[in-house]
Amino acid sequence: MIVVMKPDHTQEELRDLLGRIEKMGLRTHLSKGERRTIIGVIGERELIQEIPFTSFPGVEAAHPILQPYKLVSREFKEENTRIRIGRQVEVGGEAVPIIAGPCAVEGRQVLDEIADALHAMGIPMLRGGAFKPRTSPYSFQGLGELALKYMSDVRERTGMPIVTEVMDPRDLLLVYKYADVLQIGTRNMQNFRLLTEVGQVDKPVILKRGMSATIKEFLMSAEYIVSHGNDKVILCERGIRTFESETRNTLDLSAVPLLKKLTHLPVVVDPSHALGRTDLIPAMACAAVAAGADGLMLEVHVRPQEALSDGAQSLTPQAMEELLERLEPVARAVGRRIL
Amino acid sequence: MIVVMKPDHTQEELRDLLGRIEKMGLRTHLSKGERRTIIGVIGERELIQEIPFTSFPGVEAAHPILQPYKLVSREFKEENTRIRIGRQVEVGGEAVPIIAGPCAVEGRQVLDEIADALHAMGIPMLRGGAFKPRTSPYSFQGLGELALKYMSDVRERTGMPIVTEVMDPRDLLLVYKYADVLQIGTRNMQNFRLLTEVGQVDKPVILKRGMSATIKEFLMSAEYIVSHGNDKVILCERGIRTFESETRNTLDLSAVPLLKKLTHLPVVVDPSHALGRTDLIPAMACAAVAAGADGLMLEVHVRPQEALSDGAQSLTPQAMEELLERLEPVARAVGRRIL
Amino acid sequence: MIVVMKPDHTQEELRDLLGRIEKMGLRTHLSKGERRTIIGVIGERELIQEIPFTSFPGVEAAHPILQPYKLVSREFKEENTRIRIGRQVEVGGEAVPIIAGPCAVEGRQVLDEIADALHAMGIPMLRGGAFKPRTSPYSFQGLGELALKYMSDVRERTGMPIVTEVMDPRDLLLVYKYADVLQIGTRNMQNFRLLTEVGQVDKPVILKRGMSATIKEFLMSAEYIVSHGNDKVILCERGIRTFESETRNTLDLSAVPLLKKLTHLPVVVDPSHALGRTDLIPAMACAAVAAGADGLMLEVHVRPQEALSDGAQSLTPQAMEELLERLEPVARAVGRRIL
Amino acid sequence: MIVVMKPDHTQEELRDLLGRIEKMGLRTHLSKGERRTIIGVIGERELIQEIPFTSFPGVEAAHPILQPYKLVSREFKEENTRIRIGRQVEVGGEAVPIIAGPCAVEGRQVLDEIADALHAMGIPMLRGGAFKPRTSPYSFQGLGELALKYMSDVRERTGMPIVTEVMDPRDLLLVYKYADVLQIGTRNMQNFRLLTEVGQVDKPVILKRGMSATIKEFLMSAEYIVSHGNDKVILCERGIRTFESETRNTLDLSAVPLLKKLTHLPVVVDPSHALGRTDLIPAMACAAVAAGADGLMLEVHVRPQEALSDGAQSLTPQAMEELLERLEPVARAVGRRIL
Repeated sequence: MIVVMKPDHTQEELRDLLGRIEKMGLRTHLSKGERRTIIGVIGERELIQEIPFTSFPGVEAAHPILQPYKLVSREFKEENTRIRIGRQVEVGGEAVPIIAGPCAVEGRQVLDEIADALHAMGIPMLRGGAFKPRTSPYSFQGLGELALKYMSDVRERTGMPIVTEVMDPRDLLLVYKYADVLQIGTRNMQNFRLLTEVGQVDKPVILKRGMSATIKEFLMSAEYIVSHGNDKVILCERGIRTFESETRNTLDLSAVPLLKKLTHLPVVVDPSHALGRTDLIPAMACAAVAAGADGLMLEVHVRPQEALSDGAQSLTPQAMEELLERLEPVARAVGRRIL
Repeated sequence: MIVVMKPDHTQEELRDLLGRIEKMGLRTHLSKGERRTIIGVIGERELIQEIPFTSFPGVEAAHPILQPYKLVSREFKEENTRIRIGRQVEVGGEAVPIIAGPCAVEGRQVLDEIADALHAMGIPMLRGGAFKPRTSPYSFQGLGELALKYMSDVRERTGMPIVTEVMDPRDLLLVYKYADVLQIGTRNMQNFRLLTEVGQVDKPVILKRGMSATIKEFLMSAEYIVSHGNDKVILCERGIRTFESETRNTLDLSAVPLLKKLTHLPVVVDPSHALGRTDLIPAMACAAVAAGADGLMLEVHVRPQEALSDGAQSLTPQAMEELLERLEPVARAVGRRIL
Repeated sequence: MIVVMKPDHTQEELRDLLGRIEKMGLRTHLSKGERRTIIGVIGERELIQEIPFTSFPGVEAAHPILQPYKLVSREFKEENTRIRIGRQVEVGGEAVPIIAGPCAVEGRQVLDEIADALHAMGIPMLRGGAFKPRTSPYSFQGLGELALKYMSDVRERTGMPIVTEVMDPRDLLLVYKYADVLQIGTRNMQNFRLLTEVGQVDKPVILKRGMSATIKEFLMSAEYIVSHGNDKVILCERGIRTFESETRNTLDLSAVPLLKKLTHLPVVVDPSHALGRTDLIPAMACAAVAAGADGLMLEVHVRPQEALSDGAQSLTPQAMEELLERLEPVARAVGRRIL
Repeated sequence: MIVVMKPDHTQEELRDLLGRIEKMGLRTHLSKGERRTIIGVIGERELIQEIPFTSFPGVEAAHPILQPYKLVSREFKEENTRIRIGRQVEVGGEAVPIIAGPCAVEGRQVLDEIADALHAMGIPMLRGGAFKPRTSPYSFQGLGELALKYMSDVRERTGMPIVTEVMDPRDLLLVYKYADVLQIGTRNMQNFRLLTEVGQVDKPVILKRGMSATIKEFLMSAEYIVSHGNDKVILCERGIRTFESETRNTLDLSAVPLLKKLTHLPVVVDPSHALGRTDLIPAMACAAVAAGADGLMLEVHVRPQEALSDGAQSLTPQAMEELLERLEPVARAVGRRIL
């Protein structure tokens, strides 16, 4: 931590601050320039973070030198984390798996239609919502456990592992029982109690980036999960909020190489939620793979215009199949392959 | 709802869409211009919202005409909602109550010092965190029930009603037992399960705006609570995320008159969290009152540099007292008074 | 400047960097922690700014310690700059002048009607556009010199000094001839050639904040003007771009106390352009004054629904007069008075 | 245009508005629902745009149905615009040309070194700044005409067409004399006078997106140029401003397929300015090509740590060459080739 004193700080203010720092067992390094006095604070990251430097009178600014996250950082672990899901899928390796399915599970029959179509084209994993976080209290809220059962029946029949969101710590055991991968949705990225809970189970977690979360906050949320014992965290970029209104959110693809640089965790991309419209999905799915994404999450529905949620961004199985054909050469071009 | 067809839509696409709309029992109003065909959809808001118009092939855009919220709107209820808290406080009336206290309750003694100072200067309500949503898993997470007990002891001694955050549905009963007002924090504004739960209790709720929430989303979250039966919702503007980095967030004061226009619910402002630094708080607290705020939430700590969280934005009791003196004439100038 | 080396930097990389710094005549201060090596760079701000620290291999980050602006900073000049305009107006003193008028001058008669109404209620300064920066090439672009003449006729008749925008260095002499205050519009805040030109004249300049400019960039643009010789710069907050769509932009009132802290220049607020709608203007104008604004710019039109630009945000003279009555007690409450 | 009346509008307000619309020669289509009266306005886009609907009392909202731009739209011209530059380069066709060079031309020798390296690896076009828009008045401002001469000497020697920015209408003739392509920088995207001027010349224009410009505003700026007679406009996405601070701006790659859908103009991407750091450029350049970009602009410098501007984002020639090798298979994968 680098602490910059105000030009008019008093000697007493400086002494008080140095005293507090040293009381914590940290070392200081004082440097008096012409215009500013600067204190370098050296020692354990966790101890340094406990001092509210800018609350001290006389302090102008404080610049952290180390990142606030540790376990998820590349500095802590250099090689890529690879997460195995079911018998056939691995996220974080050379293959780029596709995770597809409806936004919400709306009924057994429609789910089966979707899943069978996906399975037939070789998509290895199924996604689907059982509990839906809907902006309006009057919208369809999901089928709950019934949806989980329908999905696990699909898994039994097809072998596709299933990904579904857990929204509430009280549902965790239930979702855990059925799902292969737990998803933390964008609105829960900083639901720290939920993060703590999924940090204590042994199944992989897909953590979606909050729609206005910085990369640092995103990694701190992953750190929550890992620090509680679960190191199988898959990060998912799903669009951030900007002033642009032609797309629902703005897909931040530079998050992909940036995250790959800062963390050893795998990074997947969800263009469906970011864009909120199907016409731009193929181009952006290709771009995501070219940017280095370790997987793609895509919404697919057999009849988007009958979908109870997010129909506007759901590909038809036919569009999904065409997209696969476009994705494969792009993956090969960057030394990967679509799974 | 106004649906705009693509210039090259087919007759069949139009017929399918009209069929779907009419099957829902809604009426349509067709208008063919030179360049675009437009469909007006007339009927119940809830029925209209169930149709994913933009998923239909042939549809270019859909413009909602009615706001998606109902119970919280001024159109639904014209007069201001006034919410009584304890014997002496009312939010939404002529008086502008101050809600002050530490970010987190750190111990009995320090809480008592803060509360006594606030009580002595006539501040009518105490805030304090028992469960703290911290960005880092390594930071102080709050004292939990102990903090609630200390706060209720303060209430017993001083008569100040207490406001505290509930972060997890599993804590609701516990927090309910002690608190006079339940706070939903900014990171939980779209924790719909939690909103549903606090919608089923009979104590007032302060709902903080999500840090990248639109006004519409904010009101939809309030609608969640009210639609589940609890109409005692107080909205709190606490800063939105922008590109500016000199302040922690950007306090969006125009949200105050805008919300007062769109909803009958009271609106309070929390400049402490928005700004993240104390030096700008007095000016912005005055501005909030001038903009029409129905209350102010402020962080106060006896020794900010020892605070375990958010010390940088905590006023000392002395600064709070000076602020009160600045606030009173501003309140009078807009026909209000500080409580 | 504090330069942080990568954990794996080589000795040669460090040596090269130190060599470059010392070649510039700057001093360094090396501090080796357990995890990072840090270099403090001490010396002239301008020399330090010339080194592209993060281009050096081995460098992880560089944190500037001093602000990049100088002449406009409070550190450079402590007391408020007061700018006299005409015989009666001063910006930056105790009084808070109102600058009002139409978005664009549309004709002699309508300008006279507006100006006479403003003059009758004691508004001391007139604003009006002669050259209009319109988003669409098909919209009304302003009357040019004719507008300037109409405005100067108003000044002759009423004594009101006039403010008008200069959009193009080629118009500067013409605008200079007629105007009392030159305005730099939000889209030109970083038109550095135009800033250089107005920095070489002797009339006051109102510099509008770019709609996505940081406070630092805003002050750097002011520094451009002042460093070329013109220290009569008035800063104008006019709303920033965010994700919110209920208002045209988001009025960033915290910019007012923040700027007053960082710079000695006066700060005025334009709520009309920020909000883009009249209904929220009175509340936000009051809030601006309470926040410490040194002046207000407001759009007024006698018949907003006939305005050729920005009618939706133009107050009628009657609404302006009512606003004045609301503003005066707020100004008094913060120790100011409306001029 | 769809105009929505307030629920409590008067008959007189409705009559006045209808009168105004009909006086313009436009047709109306009235629809009275239970809760709202809606007016469809039919006729010429330009006439409709002249009415400030939301300034009329009684009007709640106005929703435009047609895009405000015309000449640049796909609706106006379906096939892609292809722009030929020099003898060998075409932008908007199957090939994806690379435009590379230093941020600023700093001297003859260093420019020659850079250009020769680029030429040797087959890069077809050279970029370089003669007039530099620098945030600080104390930074290097460019060599002006000298830089233009050095660049045109390079063209003579290598045949590479040159791209350079024009910042001021007064420099247009000078820049026109030397450059093959005129660049309008991000800070000038809404410098409408400059747009008008480059709309009157016959050389291609690269228009950079403003760093907080919406797609609609970006296309309106292109419409300015085209409507003045110059249809050789190349759009350039270069990053937008968000809350993220790990990269300088956020590269908005979804703008590429979105623009390709809305307009017939070619779209190139500048990852260097968007990211502000070299380490993420290769991944994002590949992603841009996969997203459908018609060209790439990249900053290259032989000795980035000596660059007078933007060194931190300049690739070395060696890094550029490695990038070319990565780009080629990606381009082939999407049916294109790197030029």
